Amino acid sequence: MADHAQPAIDVPALTALLDGKYAEIREMTRKNLSEYAEVLDEAIELPTAEFRERVLELVREMARSGATGLGFPTEYGGGGDIGASVAGFETMAFGDLSILVKVGVQFGLFGGAILQLGSKHHHDAYIADLVTGDLMGCFAMTETGHGSNVQALGTYATYDVEAQEFVITTPDDRSRKDYIGNAAAHARMAVVFAQLEIGGSSEGVHEFVVPIRDEDGNTLDGVRIEDDGAKIGLNGVDNGRLWFDGVRVPRVNMLNRYADVSEDGTYSSAIENVDRRFFTMLGTLIQGRVCVGGAGISASKVALAVAVKYANKRRQFGAPHSDEEVLLLDYGMHQRRLLPLLAKTYALHFSQEILVNELHNVLSTTEAPDRQRRALESRAAGTKALSTWHATRTIQECREACGGAGYLMANRLGALRADTDVFTTFEGDNHILLQLVAKGLLTDYSSSFGDLDQLGMVRFVANLAVETVVERTSAHKLLERIRDVLPGGTEDRWDQEAGLLDPEYQLAMFRWREQHILSGVARRLKRGMDQGLDAVAVFSNVQDHVIAAGRAHVERLVLEAFVEKTAMMADGDNKVALNQLCDLYALSTIEADRGWFMEHGRLSSTRSKAISREVSSLCRALRPIAEDLVDAFGIPREMLRAEMLDDPGTV
Amino acid sequence: MADHAQPAIDVPALTALLDGKYAEIREMTRKNLSEYAEVLDEAIELPTAEFRERVLELVREMARSGATGLGFPTEYGGGGDIGASVAGFETMAFGDLSILVKVGVQFGLFGGAILQLGSKHHHDAYIADLVTGDLMGCFAMTETGHGSNVQALGTYATYDVEAQEFVITTPDDRSRKDYIGNAAAHARMAVVFAQLEIGGSSEGVHEFVVPIRDEDGNTLDGVRIEDDGAKIGLNGVDNGRLWFDGVRVPRVNMLNRYADVSEDGTYSSAIENVDRRFFTMLGTLIQGRVCVGGAGISASKVALAVAVKYANKRRQFGAPHSDEEVLLLDYGMHQRRLLPLLAKTYALHFSQEILVNELHNVLSTTEAPDRQRRALESRAAGTKALSTWHATRTIQECREACGGAGYLMANRLGALRADTDVFTTFEGDNHILLQLVAKGLLTDYSSSFGDLDQLGMVRFVANLAVETVVERTSAHKLLERIRDVLPGGTEDRWDQEAGLLDPEYQLAMFRWREQHILSGVARRLKRGMDQGLDAVAVFSNVQDHVIAAGRAHVERLVLEAFVEKTAMMADGDNKVALNQLCDLYALSTIEADRGWFMEHGRLSSTRSKAISREVSSLCRALRPIAEDLVDAFGIPREMLRAEMLDDPGTV
Repeated sequence: MADHAQPAIDVPALTALLDGKYAEIREMTRKNLSEYAEVLDEAIELPTAEFRERVLELVREMARSGATGLGFPTEYGGGGDIGASVAGFETMAFGDLSILVKVGVQFGLFGGAILQLGSKHHHDAYIADLVTGDLMGCFAMTETGHGSNVQALGTYATYDVEAQEFVITTPDDRSRKDYIGNAAAHARMAVVFAQLEIGGSSEGVHEFVVPIRDEDGNTLDGVRIEDDGAKIGLNGVDNGRLWFDGVRVPRVNMLNRYADVSEDGTYSSAIENVDRRFFTMLGTLIQGRVCVGGAGISASKVALAVAVKYANKRRQFGAPHSDEEVLLLDYGMHQRRLLPLLAKTYALHFSQEILVNELHNVLSTTEAPDRQRRALESRAAGTKALSTWHATRTIQECREACGGAGYLMANRLGALRADTDVFTTFEGDNHILLQLVAKGLLTDYSSSFGDLDQLGMVRFVANLAVETVVERTSAHKLLERIRDVLPGGTEDRWDQEAGLLDPEYQLAMFRWREQHILSGVARRLKRGMDQGLDAVAVFSNVQDHVIAAGRAHVERLVLEAFVEKTAMMADGDNKVALNQLCDLYALSTIEADRGWFMEHGRLSSTRSKAISREVSSLCRALRPIAEDLVDAFGIPREMLRAEMLDDPGTV
Repeated sequence: MADHAQPAIDVPALTALLDGKYAEIREMTRKNLSEYAEVLDEAIELPTAEFRERVLELVREMARSGATGLGFPTEYGGGGDIGASVAGFETMAFGDLSILVKVGVQFGLFGGAILQLGSKHHHDAYIADLVTGDLMGCFAMTETGHGSNVQALGTYATYDVEAQEFVITTPDDRSRKDYIGNAAAHARMAVVFAQLEIGGSSEGVHEFVVPIRDEDGNTLDGVRIEDDGAKIGLNGVDNGRLWFDGVRVPRVNMLNRYADVSEDGTYSSAIENVDRRFFTMLGTLIQGRVCVGGAGISASKVALAVAVKYANKRRQFGAPHSDEEVLLLDYGMHQRRLLPLLAKTYALHFSQEILVNELHNVLSTTEAPDRQRRALESRAAGTKALSTWHATRTIQECREACGGAGYLMANRLGALRADTDVFTTFEGDNHILLQLVAKGLLTDYSSSFGDLDQLGMVRFVANLAVETVVERTSAHKLLERIRDVLPGGTEDRWDQEAGLLDPEYQLAMFRWREQHILSGVARRLKRGMDQGLDAVAVFSNVQDHVIAAGRAHVERLVLEAFVEKTAMMADGDNKVALNQLCDLYALSTIEADRGWFMEHGRLSSTRSKAISREVSSLCRALRPIAEDLVDAFGIPREMLRAEMLDDPGTV
């Protein structure tokens, strides 16, 4: 067990490091948040209908200030900077999350669909108005019976060549649009995902701009709207259901960047493969996933700031020969509960930073290579899954760590927990997203295999040689590199001699695990098909390994991001502290999966116990600077909304 | 990997087995629940103030029907059957949990304190009225600054010998009573826990009946009441804060079963040791803990019933060559998410059944032996901790497994989650409770060591020989027994040959783990003190092991209960199914802790992998009967409040 240095944190410098190149936009957003801090009270106190109006008002106010349009082209009043828009969104996630999600719906989903799926006609027609918030819209993709399986949507749009119109129809209740933000009250327009039908044949899912309300807010003919009603959280967002009964829109209302229908009903697309076309259109979801993942990280920061500050003030049970009781944060178990979550939050932050840069680069060029785009999609999907599960777990642990005080809505944790709960579900169910990650790895982002269907993956992989799959994973190359960098140069010696705090050792463990699970999945898929089982059974039996592979991949990316970031820091106490945090992330992740590592001969029982001791030791080392580490997130004090921190009764 | 039989479930027979000897009271409670099922809607729809009144009305209605007074003596209008009262409470937990908690506060905490801490004078004065709900009261123990550390309460009661009155005073905000159910609106009386002071010297915490409102609901002089405001859930319960400014009550208002003050101010108690006296008084909390644990199990049942039924109807993604998509429950990952939780719910149910019987036996005799009482306290504390954490985790997993539909309040999961969230905190924080369990094991429920203080435990254990501690654990004896029962008779052979599905193997693993962690804790405590560290540091460093010891102990009790129950069943399909569930509980618990077992040489990597395969195999075997297994809980359909199960759009 190493003796750890006791660094002193330079908080402003650490904040600057975390803020990165978008420090200015983050700082501006913090100021905005503080200005309407009372909305956190209103979220608890106002009746739903009133709170929805209040949220709308604030969204429009922010829109007028320019804060929400950063990702749109400057010619339509936007800021022309996608990276900045995501950074602003992440920071906004320190505040009320109904506002955040309404912003996401209006500018990310609705606006993003117009921008990325539409052509100049649509941009000219809608973007300037939606950027100001004058034109509110919704993103009508999900259907009640078709959540994750978007390709199976039931809503259809038939082309009427006489009228040169599309006719939008909801055939049954399974195909009603559902959980659609902005639909229940505020949207005047919807981007509707529907099966395009021309002359009796289907061309797959396409998108149409469909007006649903007039300027006075009256529902238009043929449209039926129902309120989704109360939700666990996010009650400032008006989610609703939509049915279309032969609703007609002009031909030009089809968003035609990737496919078009001519006046005479001829279908054309530059992307010939139907699955690839579908997946390209769905690529518009990337930005939403990046944003939701970032919001999950921000929510975790808020919860940890509350719980760490509380634990550094609150005392319970006595120290011997002392009138004062012991601070919660001086208890080993309390450190164990909070500090590995803090380390992971930092790790995810730096991984998210890379993701946002990559998103900015890909979306800022007209034609990024397919492969780069898919790698981005995969990383966005995987980071979203890990970050939002992390948020759910972290906020819950923080709530429990604050005891009864944490259960009162006067403190932020309850609202945070309720509002973020759906993050693991929306913008892609987390399990489905990790399957998507694994599929990308198994198929090397193959262009002949673009859809979300797992069974196609089973057959695809089963037709490859196992070696091909292993070859295709990027991890296998790393195995050789590991042999070079580790002392002794043989796998046997990893386990016995290399230092636990050596990032190369930690990375080797993460990489080896990813590679091993992935090739195991390939072998199992092949074996299952060779045994003559049907693809459903084969996939079902291997599904938990598929998901484990996706998770191991993303965890490796996250560790790499953290290691790279600390390596680039100038020497000094902040670097020492971040290295300790990085070690804690790496070792607590290995500890959590130590059963797997031991099963696969990568960890001896002696070394496994040493890792647990080291995790506890790192927690003790980080304890004195824990509050500085949460202060560095730069969360405005009002956003913590933690009555208990100032209450002479509590602390 | 074993081939598993495919049993068919006799649902009514399984319900009868689960209902056990209190089948009649459970059936009556189910009928009551169905009669006021609309309260589940009202919990979402009514404003807080109205909902509180509605809950009060229903609690009083149930009180008049006799359903809530089962635990009180018949001479005061009660049912005279403690076991039946707990069984009724557990069943009531299928319904709205604000009602449940208000019932718990009024009849369990307030009524229970009067009954168990008071003498005939208090029984005559209050019980008949509180059993009918005419006299509403509250249990004013917890203070804002003194949650788990009850012995450090700040409120004091000074005896005024002239007036023959106690004067109750809140010295500061840390000592205000907080989170007190019934206090904000409805209680006319409080049982106040306060430091008793006579003639300048302190006699420790005692309890006093203190009127706080008059018959019209006006707050009495010297009392200040503040509403705790909105909470994460349970908003039908009026939690509040209380301050006392020299409030005077007659001498006879001290609850004097265990200690008394004479007219002239002479203090007397049959229990000489101050810590033991305090702990005996706190024994009144046992029943509350048993009830909360049971409620956690019931809430888990409701959540699992919703999620399993949904997964058995809901389809997503296609089967090849089929128009129909695949049922969620046919996915291996979905089985893995839900079915081990179902198995654990059954396991906890049978363990709870033993606990309730033991509670009934101990509380129904006037003087159970101290040791038996403490063993009961320990089991109640540990079961409460495991059951309520299980509820939090299970409900969350079920919510996520139901996707977007699970996020709508039209479905029960959100309310369940919010209402049960505080179960891990109230009636004893779960971590503190597991420390209590470990302390009992380490000290053999020593009578010289009755208080909750961990540091005392450190010093106590440090003064023993390690062998003494190991000797004191009951687990060490089992180690010898294991050697006898397992094939080969040596420890080495456990790991290689004994069948995974042999309950003796499973029990051996659970028992060995408990014993090993416990003796490890003893060694670490001794070593720390021998090294000259102070008790705070020693305890802090060992705290996670202490808690792990408590958890391992309770998990062993839970497995024993399940194994015993199935062993007693008549042969038949239900027995086959419950044996499979029991295997799944045992093996998924070992799987979750397989890192520890491998570290300690109790599991080879080969066998560890075999356990994971067996868990998956058991999930597949149980999948066809999963819905029968949740139907057997006998939850009235209305209590599931799952719109999505009947919605043609969802399934």
